[in-house]
Amino acid sequence: MAATDKIFQHGTLGLLVPGLFDGTITAGELLTHGDTGIGTLDGLNGEVIIINGHAYQAREDGQVREIAADETLPFASVHFEKPDISAPIEATNQADFETQVVRDYRLRNVFAAIRIDGTFKTIKTRVAPRQQPPYKTLVQATATQPEFSGEHVQGTIVGYYAPQLFQGATVGGFHLHFLSQDHQLGGHLLGFEIEQAELKIQHFADFQVHLPIDNEAYLQEEFDNETIDHAINKAER
Amino acid sequence: MAATDKIFQHGTLGLLVPGLFDGTITAGELLTHGDTGIGTLDGLNGEVIIINGHAYQAREDGQVREIAADETLPFASVHFEKPDISAPIEATNQADFETQVVRDYRLRNVFAAIRIDGTFKTIKTRVAPRQQPPYKTLVQATATQPEFSGEHVQGTIVGYYAPQLFQGATVGGFHLHFLSQDHQLGGHLLGFEIEQAELKIQHFADFQVHLPIDNEAYLQEEFDNETIDHAINKAER
Repeated sequence: MAATDKIFQHGTLGLLVPGLFDGTITAGELLTHGDTGIGTLDGLNGEVIIINGHAYQAREDGQVREIAADETLPFASVHFEKPDISAPIEATNQADFETQVVRDYRLRNVFAAIRIDGTFKTIKTRVAPRQQPPYKTLVQATATQPEFSGEHVQGTIVGYYAPQLFQGATVGGFHLHFLSQDHQLGGHLLGFEIEQAELKIQHFADFQVHLPIDNEAYLQEEFDNETIDHAINKAER
Repeated sequence: MAATDKIFQHGTLGLLVPGLFDGTITAGELLTHGDTGIGTLDGLNGEVIIINGHAYQAREDGQVREIAADETLPFASVHFEKPDISAPIEATNQADFETQVVRDYRLRNVFAAIRIDGTFKTIKTRVAPRQQPPYKTLVQATATQPEFSGEHVQGTIVGYYAPQLFQGATVGGFHLHFLSQDHQLGGHLLGFEIEQAELKIQHFADFQVHLPIDNEAYLQEEFDNETIDHAINKAER
């Protein structure tokens, strides 16, 4: 009974901003809500890429490993894959791609899952470094991050487009991660040039946010919307 | 199979701000997602109060009527009622009530449904006046609104508390409507003094937003988050 008509998100991007990095959902439970998606692990430990029902962690040391069902995440977005658009990509770089996709597939005010499978002339990622409590803020924790790059890499970009109105609850605009086919390269996508690739888009009418309302730190935090907006623009672009 | 663990919202408060007042969900479909809630009708036509599976419209002329299944709404929030808190209310006015409820039931970062049944020493409401296309903005449309008041009125307050992070998607903070037991008085709640009343609260981990992604005006609109924030604070408080 996989519902393909909504995005399920655990937590908010906003809760990462003051440093609420403790995992509050298990990977096992998360995967009951989707087979594809992105996130981060307990302690802001790397970048999570979920493809075909398997969750992978791109670590700050450059390694990629599969995540066990009992590991936890403070933030993740998932959906069950059933694209409604499948097309070759003409844009060669990320900036052109984002502009074209929003225009051609009328994403401006719509949630959508983005998946690109192909060969990339160049690809560049970064990986959030694992934090220890007491946690720094997101901006402090991500001030220096290891970056990784490759040439002529086969792999998959996966992530989401969200309307700007939902900035704070999630990342307004694009939020994309990458995993190479050989699992030698992964992380938060910083840029790419395409050799040849196929784009899949899945539009959603529904966005469901699941909040960690039993987590004491979450209940107590005094969030500030302006701080969250600025921090997301700094840490997640 | 009524899911009592989430709020279902059709549309966003944000889409009302530039004047997207056309109804995009039928009352019949809305009631499949909840038996309790609030909203507005096509054309910003009054205030909607949903109690015990019936949807009512408080009109600008002061009349209250039940809404038919084929009438449409641009914005509404509903849930299936199953309160986890039931308590007498000690606060006598709305400002004290809101402060106490957020503190006592730890709502700050949590979605919750609020229901108050009782007798009100005074109660004051306002009702948005019906608009005709081409629509004005929300602030323009609600610049002058009829207000209604009563003394020693029996009735029900129903609505929601939402975390401030979701301002724009919905109203951050409280958004409450009122309907008297005799259906002679209703609308958006502006203030009350309690004689005796019982409070019911239902905490939610999940908030699901359903967007009108087949509506041309919605797809085309260029929303601005700051404008939306200011307009909600002006029109919905």
